[in-house]
Amino acid sequence: MQLNREQLMEAVKAEMPERRWIHTLGVMETAVKLAERYGEDPARAELAAILHDVAKYWPTDRMERVIREEQLPEELLQYDKELWHAPVGAVEAERTYGVTDQEVLDAVRYHTSGRAGMTKLERIVCLADYMEPGRDFPGVDTIRELSVKSLDKALIAGLDSTITFLIAKGKRIFPLTMQARNDLIERSKTID
Amino acid sequence: MQLNREQLMEAVKAEMPERRWIHTLGVMETAVKLAERYGEDPARAELAAILHDVAKYWPTDRMERVIREEQLPEELLQYDKELWHAPVGAVEAERTYGVTDQEVLDAVRYHTSGRAGMTKLERIVCLADYMEPGRDFPGVDTIRELSVKSLDKALIAGLDSTITFLIAKGKRIFPLTMQARNDLIERSKTID
Repeated sequence: MQLNREQLMEAVKAEMPERRWIHTLGVMETAVKLAERYGEDPARAELAAILHDVAKYWPTDRMERVIREEQLPEELLQYDKELWHAPVGAVEAERTYGVTDQEVLDAVRYHTSGRAGMTKLERIVCLADYMEPGRDFPGVDTIRELSVKSLDKALIAGLDSTITFLIAKGKRIFPLTMQARNDLIERSKTID
Repeated sequence: MQLNREQLMEAVKAEMPERRWIHTLGVMETAVKLAERYGEDPARAELAAILHDVAKYWPTDRMERVIREEQLPEELLQYDKELWHAPVGAVEAERTYGVTDQEVLDAVRYHTSGRAGMTKLERIVCLADYMEPGRDFPGVDTIRELSVKSLDKALIAGLDSTITFLIAKGKRIFPLTMQARNDLIERSKTID
């Protein structure tokens, strides 16, 4: 299915409640700004942002079916369902919306968990998801301030907030999230 | 070298400054109490406690040599040096002090990092190291209170304090520590 920008936005909007679409608009706007600031293609950042939550409101069994059928890491099924929509969304972006740009697909796939060795596009979409204007959680202003100076430092602060939240809730930490943070810290020792 | 309890204590005491030996006495006392409470052999818990910090004051290059020579996980070398003395101490416990009980050696080896699938003895020594009477850090009283009711919940709280500390310091989280916490949370869903 080849859709233009407006058709794609309409199709994705139909997959979610109004408030989640407003969040998506916020992620689009923020991802474009971050792409401009840090030298990434704004159009790719926007495309990934439009699609990042496309599977967010799918029923659990539909997400689980995709994880099994597409041989996504089954480890996912042992962790919080909140993580599932990202890799499932990447499959949907490719299968239903015809996205072929692997970096865009990976930016959708890893926007919730992160991973070690995130591309710039992945870091931009993940960070935009943390800090879009509609977000309000302890530490979000610090993340926004850091984002002006350093993509990686801001993203580390975002991942810190996730891990701190999971500790407070007594929930497990998804390995990719810890690996993403460790890798960003290691890289930030040499490059800013 | 076969030493009796007093000789072993003298030998290990000579490896560290006075304040660290006092800490070791606290870990011994606490590990014995936890062993009695949770049905582990107090003598094994005490033996692991005596030896747990035996390599703590070794020079870095001596620890590094043992890690390389004994083919301990080289990943260690990329993480905080604070982690090295535990697996190096296990080598020393076996090589110099003749300990052959693999569970005692593993209790020394994993007392700082933890790992997934910790034995009861490992959990006892790791927890005792967090909560011995000389310890004073935010949350230690909660850990002590939890330790009366649940070995695992107390240890989760201990690992939480480590991860929270590392986040505050902008340091990486050692994978085994996250895996230990995740595994304890998973297991505590079914068993208390």
